[in-house]
Amino acid sequence: MGDTIKRLAVLGSTGSIGQQTLEVVRALPHQFHIVGLAAGKNIDLLAEQVAEFKPRFVYYQDKKARLADAEYELLSLEDMARHPQVDTVVIATSGKSGLSPTLAAVTAGKTVALANKESLVTAGEIIINEAKRNAAQIMPIDSEHSAIWQCLHSETQKATQIILTASGGPFRHYSTARLAKVTVEQALKHPSWQMGRKVTIDSATLMNKGLEVIEAHWLFDMPYENIKVLIHPQSIIHSMVEFIDGSIKAQLSYPDMRLPIQYALSYPGRLANPQLPRLDWSAINNLTFEQPDFDTFPCLKIAIEAGRRGGTYPAVLCAADEVAVDLFLSQRIKLTDIAGLVKQTLEQHQATAHPTLEEIVAADAWAREKVLRITSRDKR
Amino acid sequence: MGDTIKRLAVLGSTGSIGQQTLEVVRALPHQFHIVGLAAGKNIDLLAEQVAEFKPRFVYYQDKKARLADAEYELLSLEDMARHPQVDTVVIATSGKSGLSPTLAAVTAGKTVALANKESLVTAGEIIINEAKRNAAQIMPIDSEHSAIWQCLHSETQKATQIILTASGGPFRHYSTARLAKVTVEQALKHPSWQMGRKVTIDSATLMNKGLEVIEAHWLFDMPYENIKVLIHPQSIIHSMVEFIDGSIKAQLSYPDMRLPIQYALSYPGRLANPQLPRLDWSAINNLTFEQPDFDTFPCLKIAIEAGRRGGTYPAVLCAADEVAVDLFLSQRIKLTDIAGLVKQTLEQHQATAHPTLEEIVAADAWAREKVLRITSRDKR
Repeated sequence: MGDTIKRLAVLGSTGSIGQQTLEVVRALPHQFHIVGLAAGKNIDLLAEQVAEFKPRFVYYQDKKARLADAEYELLSLEDMARHPQVDTVVIATSGKSGLSPTLAAVTAGKTVALANKESLVTAGEIIINEAKRNAAQIMPIDSEHSAIWQCLHSETQKATQIILTASGGPFRHYSTARLAKVTVEQALKHPSWQMGRKVTIDSATLMNKGLEVIEAHWLFDMPYENIKVLIHPQSIIHSMVEFIDGSIKAQLSYPDMRLPIQYALSYPGRLANPQLPRLDWSAINNLTFEQPDFDTFPCLKIAIEAGRRGGTYPAVLCAADEVAVDLFLSQRIKLTDIAGLVKQTLEQHQATAHPTLEEIVAADAWAREKVLRITSRDKR
Repeated sequence: MGDTIKRLAVLGSTGSIGQQTLEVVRALPHQFHIVGLAAGKNIDLLAEQVAEFKPRFVYYQDKKARLADAEYELLSLEDMARHPQVDTVVIATSGKSGLSPTLAAVTAGKTVALANKESLVTAGEIIINEAKRNAAQIMPIDSEHSAIWQCLHSETQKATQIILTASGGPFRHYSTARLAKVTVEQALKHPSWQMGRKVTIDSATLMNKGLEVIEAHWLFDMPYENIKVLIHPQSIIHSMVEFIDGSIKAQLSYPDMRLPIQYALSYPGRLANPQLPRLDWSAINNLTFEQPDFDTFPCLKIAIEAGRRGGTYPAVLCAADEVAVDLFLSQRIKLTDIAGLVKQTLEQHQATAHPTLEEIVAADAWAREKVLRITSRDKR
């Protein structure tokens, strides 16, 4: 880490990852300094955060709001991401709003601590190329990709296989019929992880794991056929990497997002943080593993297939899923309808290979409209 | 690895680790070249190995033997270990015979691939200091220490804890009474590892794990209180390392000594070897963990305590155990007598702190005689 304090901009500071990022900063005030905070609509929480961390730069969606008693400069997400006074940009926004600031940050050669899945899934090729061109470092905040990163750290050869573990979600071993009756409340209770609503639903359908496969493909330059998904309900092994000699490395910890967040911020070093839990091996008797059930959880297969096809397919995948999850959360469709909606949308998409950012944005918009159109047609 | 071929001397080439080292070399003939082979009494196998690998240097114990039809130079173990034409010395001899060549190799600044436990256990301080002084690299061949080495590789901070896994041996969950009735044949059947006779018995009493704790102490400069032993009967996780942020790394593979052997030879790189098995996650459903039973397997506690006390205690531990295991193998004592014999010998020892090599050798000789004297007294 060196002796200098790292200056952070946290985009999406009021969300689940954003709040946990601030917890890490609170625990390590001599290592990290918040220079920018950006939020969407949760102005009350943002105001509290601004009062506590006194960032120089602030962003929020509501143009009419004004945070009382605070001195700050209002910046757009992109301007904050590329500002010379920012060392590391934490992209903790959810959905497609992460894409543009991620691109701004990598183009400015920043270190990007990336929790936003959609950026890499929809525009992996553009972001990775831009990061290479500008020597920007992308540090994954997902627990799985952080685990892979930790296992790969300083190995001289490329990995031969990535084994992405998955808790299997709250509905592991459910039949499709039983899955169709799941309520929003049930789906929002994840067995091992505390996360935002969208990610929790994506975990229940395994769409989340499919998106992570695509992310891993881009982050680690790994062919899809060498990325395996393995169900591991205890969420202790966060992923594994196999090397050319057959040796496998795994990273383990209790499920707590503060660890991958902190590692993304402290890399290549590590920092002592007494708030982070330590595995208690007198209480861990059993780690279990199963193959994923692709039939009951079709979203996993749909996502990987969209990743393999590439082009604008992953953008359509993300957008269609986001709308479908919203429809489920507002109780307009069943949990099991998500896969069908996303699949239909993908099937009707005319994809573009190696898309530009504009083409990705257009595919996203097309997909959102398409899902709604399919849904309203089905309702008729 | 670079492009140059590594020149190896294998001391103890006819033993279990020696033979497996030659298997690795056979599989990777463009990476490794055998320049020296040394064996004890198994002249027939050595003759075959010499015919196959045509080493320039040979050593064997039997002064009268002569390997037919082979051209080689007879060298002592020490001269072979420090010969300028040798890059890496594989110390695969068992028992105390490994100490002197290990010391010769580290003093000559060689890379030492070390399978011999006794060297580090009895003379850890001398060997580690000598290795540091001469910039010699010690690469562990034990699967556990290789796992730790792989997990530590290129981490910028020291580990906070080492979790040394143990299969628990063939008699896990046995009562002391049942353990007392174990036959030599039963004790020589290890559930997961194919190893030499001495190590297999040490695994059955958990003495082996105690010796490994002492090895880990020296290899990784780790205080004894931060080395934990964890029973893991499947022998898939070969050990784990915990870092200051609470993150744990583990190394996994099927139990096959060729992997740690090859890693010790290829470090810091890795080499593709199709003969090494890959974990099949469709067949691995369950990894289990238990705390060790220090009461039923007192050797574990005795060994760690000898390590903590340091000085000549570990030399006495090793020597007493070697004689006691021999007595068990020749059916003169019960398996459960080993711990008592070793413990009594340690209790009667007048230890020397920071011993010289001569003092270690003297303590070893004293302990061997002591065990025999205790045994013959008990028989009367």
